[in-house]
Amino acid sequence: MPSTELRILAIPGIPEITSGSDLGTTIAQSVRQANLKIEEGDIFVVAQKVVSKAEGQIVPLDAVEPSSMARRWAAAHDKDARVIEVVLSESQRLVRMERGLIIAETSHGFVCANAGVDTSNTARDQVSLLPKDSDESAAQILRTLEEEFEVELAVIVSDTFGRPWREGQVNVALGMAGIAPLLDYRGHSDSFGRELEVTIIAVADELASAAELVTGKTTQVPVVVIKGFSYSPEDGDSHQIVRPPDKDLFR
Amino acid sequence: MPSTELRILAIPGIPEITSGSDLGTTIAQSVRQANLKIEEGDIFVVAQKVVSKAEGQIVPLDAVEPSSMARRWAAAHDKDARVIEVVLSESQRLVRMERGLIIAETSHGFVCANAGVDTSNTARDQVSLLPKDSDESAAQILRTLEEEFEVELAVIVSDTFGRPWREGQVNVALGMAGIAPLLDYRGHSDSFGRELEVTIIAVADELASAAELVTGKTTQVPVVVIKGFSYSPEDGDSHQIVRPPDKDLFR
Repeated sequence: MPSTELRILAIPGIPEITSGSDLGTTIAQSVRQANLKIEEGDIFVVAQKVVSKAEGQIVPLDAVEPSSMARRWAAAHDKDARVIEVVLSESQRLVRMERGLIIAETSHGFVCANAGVDTSNTARDQVSLLPKDSDESAAQILRTLEEEFEVELAVIVSDTFGRPWREGQVNVALGMAGIAPLLDYRGHSDSFGRELEVTIIAVADELASAAELVTGKTTQVPVVVIKGFSYSPEDGDSHQIVRPPDKDLFR
Repeated sequence: MPSTELRILAIPGIPEITSGSDLGTTIAQSVRQANLKIEEGDIFVVAQKVVSKAEGQIVPLDAVEPSSMARRWAAAHDKDARVIEVVLSESQRLVRMERGLIIAETSHGFVCANAGVDTSNTARDQVSLLPKDSDESAAQILRTLEEEFEVELAVIVSDTFGRPWREGQVNVALGMAGIAPLLDYRGHSDSFGRELEVTIIAVADELASAAELVTGKTTQVPVVVIKGFSYSPEDGDSHQIVRPPDKDLFR
């Protein structure tokens, strides 16, 4: 059942995250310092960038030797050839490579700009990669938070993706634990008793988008908690939200 | 500046909307009956379906004479030829037409399944079309609400769209008034002082997605109010969020 009130709270005071940081413990500490009450069913949304940092998914560009393809593309589009090299190495399929943009499918199956390689919010001459397995990242954070707060919770790892047809970017879910990414209305009836045509809602992506409204982009708030969303606590993972290439009309 | 707490509240008690309903007044009455306090900057998110109903954007299928193309497609894919005829007449460009799916560009420039023609939550043998001009719909509702509550507000008309590459659907903004759809971070610096690479967030779409978490699909809650989101009250419209075809890699 849908909720009648949802609250999305920033978790203040998360310190700078570095390689090896225990994110779950760090989040729990900030929650306690802020005197936030954690309740059964609360959903933590954690920005990909801090997960990647904690897991050491950071590449120093000094160590990157660009291929000739990376060099050509970079020269043609005024880019850093080392960054392009990292993008290509993170790609398992190039979906579009034109007008200076690289839209690539990652090893996880996500289709996004630059295969998720990101130069913002990292030190100069470094780029961040997506977590190796964001579902496992979410599960690890979830285990710690559930132990700390002794209630069932959920965790979503979120990232900022562009999309075709519409300007601007939105946050989506990269990985999750304790919640299924899709809410399936098939078999439910609408208010006229007719079976619903719109049947599967990507609630994990909507939760990630909702969280972005609180985290913003320029502040040090990489984690929020969402309260009041009703869901059945079941395990889901990002594979359920990645459309298989053979079912996709745009790959 | 991002907010530190967002609240999304269902507006209960919205009666069944029919052609000619004054949506703004209806919403205001339900707000008052529920004793909800409306404050400066509150954002109302209104489901497309009730806007279409209020504006009479409902087509009785009895009156539809399918073309031979609509008949052929319907027969091949086990669809109602009259619905297909309406879909084709609402399309200004067919982006994909395969595997029984029609992804079309509407006259507004939106790319979505079935050109926004929807059979759910309408009486049998009727379909709903998108509002003719969702920005104007939002502006009309906004004028009434601002008069009623005597504070500056914003209104977003939302709909449920699928997207490439990811399973499930999410809510996006069809039209808006009192708020710009995109939040532009260009020129802002990240926490390392480097100019942000991810620069434009589609906040109107994120607000629509956040609202969907409260409205759900099977309940009679077509309107929510979002409190605590900081934005500069400026007029924006949906043209800013529609990517022009010549800038789009997927059309």
